[in-house]
Amino acid sequence: MTDLRKTVERFWAAAEARDWDAFAGTLAEDVVYTLPQTRERIRGRERYVRFNREYPGDWRLRVERIVAEPGQVVTWIHFTVGLEEMYGISFFTGTERIDAITDFWPEPYEPPAGREHLVERY
Amino acid sequence: MTDLRKTVERFWAAAEARDWDAFAGTLAEDVVYTLPQTRERIRGRERYVRFNREYPGDWRLRVERIVAEPGQVVTWIHFTVGLEEMYGISFFTGTERIDAITDFWPEPYEPPAGREHLVERY
Repeated sequence: MTDLRKTVERFWAAAEARDWDAFAGTLAEDVVYTLPQTRERIRGRERYVRFNREYPGDWRLRVERIVAEPGQVVTWIHFTVGLEEMYGISFFTGTERIDAITDFWPEPYEPPAGREHLVERY
Repeated sequence: MTDLRKTVERFWAAAEARDWDAFAGTLAEDVVYTLPQTRERIRGRERYVRFNREYPGDWRLRVERIVAEPGQVVTWIHFTVGLEEMYGISFFTGTERIDAITDFWPEPYEPPAGREHLVERY
């Protein structure tokens, strides 16, 4: 159990609870948030808290898996907005507070042809 | 440094080298590979090695980040096929060999409107 792991657990619990003061408390003031899929970046705690607070929809989340080592944590979350279900994968770095977050939001797609002899669908 | 971390490093090095014997050596015989985005699953080392060996295109990969704790490893890889660039995120579990892999392949998308006041593009 690393300190950053505990911080990330509090980060997600605070987001789910809309406790934006507790959420801000997990973040370094100069936190950097990066979304490689859209090539978007948000700099600073105030903007990043606002981004989350303003995020539209009655979203709910639960942590599916967490992997941590000193200074680095990854979470896989299950995220729902109404009937829409998504996965979110987040890479965190930091010490006690979170310095950087990089998020991925993979979407469903149809499997390419040619591998039916190897796979099953579930 | 965990044993599974070393195994996962050998897994990616062997894939990049097309050394399918070394690749198979990192896997438990009953390894399970899951792709949540397509709801595909591959059971067993022989099929999973074949899936990788037959994967089309002159693909190349490099590991961008690795996070490990005992029994669990996550990698973020940069994957190219010709001019196409992708990210792959893989969750591994196991002890010395890999028992299970769950892969995510997030694709680029256009950012939704309404958050331009908070983000920069890069």
